[in-house]
Amino acid sequence: MHEFKVWGPRAQSLAVTIGERSYPLRCIDRGWWTGGVPDAGPNTKYSFVLNQGQPVPDPRSQFQPHGVNGPSQIIDHTKFPWTDRLWQAKPLGSAIIYELHIGTFTPEGTFRAALDRVDYLADLGVTHVELMPVNEFSGDWGWGYDGVDIYAPHHCYGSPDELKTFVNACHEKGVAVLLDVVYNHFGPSGNYLDQFAPYFTSAYQTPWGPAVNFDHSGSFEVRRFFIDNALMWLRDYHFDGLRLDAIHAYYDRSALPFLEELSTEVDSLSSELGRHLVLIAESDLNDPRVVTVRECGGLGIQAQWSDDFHHALHSALTGETNGYYEDFGTLTELAKALQHAFVYAGDFSRHRNRIHGRPVDGLSGHHFLGYAQTHDQVGNRAQGERLCHLLSLGRAKIAAALVLTSPFVPMLFQGEEFASSSPFQYFTNHDPDLGRKVSEGRRNEFKAFGWSPEEVPDPQDPQTFQRSKLCWDELTRQPHSDMHEWYKRLIAFRRLNPSLVNGRMREVEVRCDENAKWMVVKRQCVQLVCNLSPQTQTVPVTYDSESVLASDLNFHLRTGAIEIGPDTVVVLDSQHS
Amino acid sequence: MHEFKVWGPRAQSLAVTIGERSYPLRCIDRGWWTGGVPDAGPNTKYSFVLNQGQPVPDPRSQFQPHGVNGPSQIIDHTKFPWTDRLWQAKPLGSAIIYELHIGTFTPEGTFRAALDRVDYLADLGVTHVELMPVNEFSGDWGWGYDGVDIYAPHHCYGSPDELKTFVNACHEKGVAVLLDVVYNHFGPSGNYLDQFAPYFTSAYQTPWGPAVNFDHSGSFEVRRFFIDNALMWLRDYHFDGLRLDAIHAYYDRSALPFLEELSTEVDSLSSELGRHLVLIAESDLNDPRVVTVRECGGLGIQAQWSDDFHHALHSALTGETNGYYEDFGTLTELAKALQHAFVYAGDFSRHRNRIHGRPVDGLSGHHFLGYAQTHDQVGNRAQGERLCHLLSLGRAKIAAALVLTSPFVPMLFQGEEFASSSPFQYFTNHDPDLGRKVSEGRRNEFKAFGWSPEEVPDPQDPQTFQRSKLCWDELTRQPHSDMHEWYKRLIAFRRLNPSLVNGRMREVEVRCDENAKWMVVKRQCVQLVCNLSPQTQTVPVTYDSESVLASDLNFHLRTGAIEIGPDTVVVLDSQHS
Repeated sequence: MHEFKVWGPRAQSLAVTIGERSYPLRCIDRGWWTGGVPDAGPNTKYSFVLNQGQPVPDPRSQFQPHGVNGPSQIIDHTKFPWTDRLWQAKPLGSAIIYELHIGTFTPEGTFRAALDRVDYLADLGVTHVELMPVNEFSGDWGWGYDGVDIYAPHHCYGSPDELKTFVNACHEKGVAVLLDVVYNHFGPSGNYLDQFAPYFTSAYQTPWGPAVNFDHSGSFEVRRFFIDNALMWLRDYHFDGLRLDAIHAYYDRSALPFLEELSTEVDSLSSELGRHLVLIAESDLNDPRVVTVRECGGLGIQAQWSDDFHHALHSALTGETNGYYEDFGTLTELAKALQHAFVYAGDFSRHRNRIHGRPVDGLSGHHFLGYAQTHDQVGNRAQGERLCHLLSLGRAKIAAALVLTSPFVPMLFQGEEFASSSPFQYFTNHDPDLGRKVSEGRRNEFKAFGWSPEEVPDPQDPQTFQRSKLCWDELTRQPHSDMHEWYKRLIAFRRLNPSLVNGRMREVEVRCDENAKWMVVKRQCVQLVCNLSPQTQTVPVTYDSESVLASDLNFHLRTGAIEIGPDTVVVLDSQHS
Repeated sequence: MHEFKVWGPRAQSLAVTIGERSYPLRCIDRGWWTGGVPDAGPNTKYSFVLNQGQPVPDPRSQFQPHGVNGPSQIIDHTKFPWTDRLWQAKPLGSAIIYELHIGTFTPEGTFRAALDRVDYLADLGVTHVELMPVNEFSGDWGWGYDGVDIYAPHHCYGSPDELKTFVNACHEKGVAVLLDVVYNHFGPSGNYLDQFAPYFTSAYQTPWGPAVNFDHSGSFEVRRFFIDNALMWLRDYHFDGLRLDAIHAYYDRSALPFLEELSTEVDSLSSELGRHLVLIAESDLNDPRVVTVRECGGLGIQAQWSDDFHHALHSALTGETNGYYEDFGTLTELAKALQHAFVYAGDFSRHRNRIHGRPVDGLSGHHFLGYAQTHDQVGNRAQGERLCHLLSLGRAKIAAALVLTSPFVPMLFQGEEFASSSPFQYFTNHDPDLGRKVSEGRRNEFKAFGWSPEEVPDPQDPQTFQRSKLCWDELTRQPHSDMHEWYKRLIAFRRLNPSLVNGRMREVEVRCDENAKWMVVKRQCVQLVCNLSPQTQTVPVTYDSESVLASDLNFHLRTGAIEIGPDTVVVLDSQHS
């Protein structure tokens, strides 16, 4: 006996079909339909039929073994043999996050295969992995942001139990697991939500069409749909936190914003479970309110991605000034990012042609993730180039050092740590009709930036996906093993050095010379000396320092100065002298 | 010599025309155009010509002597002979506001004619008048919310100097003046802003088309346009504050919201001028953040209109349950409004089919305006009926007593105080084409509520406007003089009684009986006993009270109880016994 339940205020009739049989549901309260089916139980496959139409998946489907258009499967979450009863994630302040895409992290592209790499991650020194969306999306591969069945792990990645096995294994090896969830839009294919209820509102138009309905008629249940989803991943899959995709694409003007309601509920669950749970937002708003506690008028999200730091770092290193990089490019801006998180904090942005952001006052750097590479920053380039494909290895090492000694919570993107030769390109596996549009859209997008069609990899070409997979055998070869060693040493240094993890942005001292292209970042007794020029030059440093880490041996430490070669970074420590 | 200046990033060329002559302007910085014209000066009439097109008014026109399509006129604000140097408005906590529409307040419908009524208002006990919008709008009469030249007083109301004379006279008689400003949309006729610059953004769709651009490209100057407008009314016209129309129709997701920027600038001007200035918002958000100080994450607006109190009061008195009144109707809801301002404070609203609002914690009642009638609540009815046209005089007196003993800042709507027989109907004076659409739209709007076309007054019919004018000769006749006396006594009582103006909502005690239809509101030593039933009944009251105000003589005070007639209110005071 299984009791089916679904919210469908738009249905005139609603039934569940199992195999050849159909069982009518009855409408109870506020658009909810319910009904018991005697022979249904765990693993039963079923669909819903609205108004005698075509069978469609359950909006809260726990699993779609045959994809977005197939039947849903009942999953019993109470039976998994968890062994992580005493597990606690490290606090974000001491975290090092590793962003990971299940489909390209291993050749197999499954939860099970990813599991075999967890020892490697623990050895690297990573404390948290952040999985790119694993929800069911259209096709057999993709980035995951086109999800439609947000309660169901993607059937090509593995079963719900295999995902739990992955999380459980991470916990056993001391690694926390975060999950990227997408609540700002749904994919264009396999989305049947509109048949059931007002999940969307035409009150706001977004690049994806009508906005998700967070504040209009029916929104009380739409919010519940997302909040229950968040709680499911945290409770039933033992995730340690969630990354909320693009909250700047949420349209919500209610007195109690959805995000504040969500953070309240996650905190309650945290108390109930006795486990530390976090929410991390991707936000383009440069609004400190996002990561301010609720008691002070904030949304109560623990941390947000820090794109300003990324953009300042990226354009300082690459010299790129196209697109949003036009707002960046100087060492002064990079210094501002390190000291204030937001470079645009009430300042005029040329790229946006408006005032952007407001200052972060008194907030810890632990509210911001710092990174030189992410799936977006790599994958949204025409050819999906990593930093090490654009720069000398020396410069890529400087980027790593700046991230891993920053006052932020450092985050790496899979393969970055061994200068992976694989790009991370935009790949999709839509049906041919939609696929053609996506391919065309991608080509047109980059045409505007001067790319010819044949230079832009076709998202629908299976090779685009294959090409983006990491090649783990590179780890044993140069220069990959050298880069891997550099990351391991930086991570170990950070984890042993309290002055690097104190989160105190205001204590970060930066000296730089825009013309000579050197920069010194000082955090208590630690100094990071970067030479971004093609010449060897002499940079003044604190007198009693000694070098503890260097990207190259082409430097000489003198009294109160360092002679440092091009594209080189040296970490000095005055504590031990 | 006059230096013209206008923001017009969309213009390829821009010139000023005066009479037959044209003077080209030159583009200086970020889309600003400027140029000096030797013979221009105060009172010169001019237009702008973009791209050799038709002459159009200055977006910041100070006066449109010939309407929305005519030339603009240069106004010198430095010459007016102000005599209010020592003037200070009373604080909102002790204010009694009087909403006034210049066009219908007097037979003449001008600033000059309104001036003759200020003594009357002072005698009534009013501390603030709030002018419905006086900006230039299309046609010779209208409510004013279709404004297009927001810097220009409407030419039919009088000249800028005549408006200043009105404000100056009010100040001389001890009455502060507030102005209703509309920043959420522009009227459909005479709006040339789009030719100049991105004043609107299609990123958000509103009932009026693309939204005002508060947060997209170019918004830094659009915000300046409104903020400078607010500062102009406060600085050059000596207004004591502004009422911001429908802030729930603002679309603004910037880290520093426009409203917070505006309140910051108004506070700065207040310090600079040494005068108390206030901002009052109309808000349908039920969001306490609107009236919370900026230091606590709020927008720093001093007060907002309190529609929940109005709706609870109106539906309790009239029994109406159509439209938004379906969310109200009980005395318990009226009690909640008196104690918590928002009836919907995180509660499910049937009318909205969603959770609405959040609780007001620790805020004073002085952040909320309390009223039984406004231009909207009267004028948006099919026939523009006032409360006294719908109810017995006794009930209308109960409404007045509940407003004027409430913990809120009381506000009256013109004529309410003498039970004016004039309705306040929806009237417009658009050109015939637009006018036809407006008439038709109005008829269709009310068709849905069961009104036949001939029952709904035609907004374009000049009689609809004439009919809405107050008839001051009624003041000397019954029942108008009786009602007038009742208001005067209630106002005098409030102004003399500290317990009524302390703003402490949490100290308001309410007892009521939904079936028997009586209610007792207690504020320290003052008790208001209302009998809303058609029968005389006995209501328990505090022992040592004596009556100080009664809407009728049909009551008997006994020990610990009062026998009170139908539709009657008695105010008791235990202080003097």
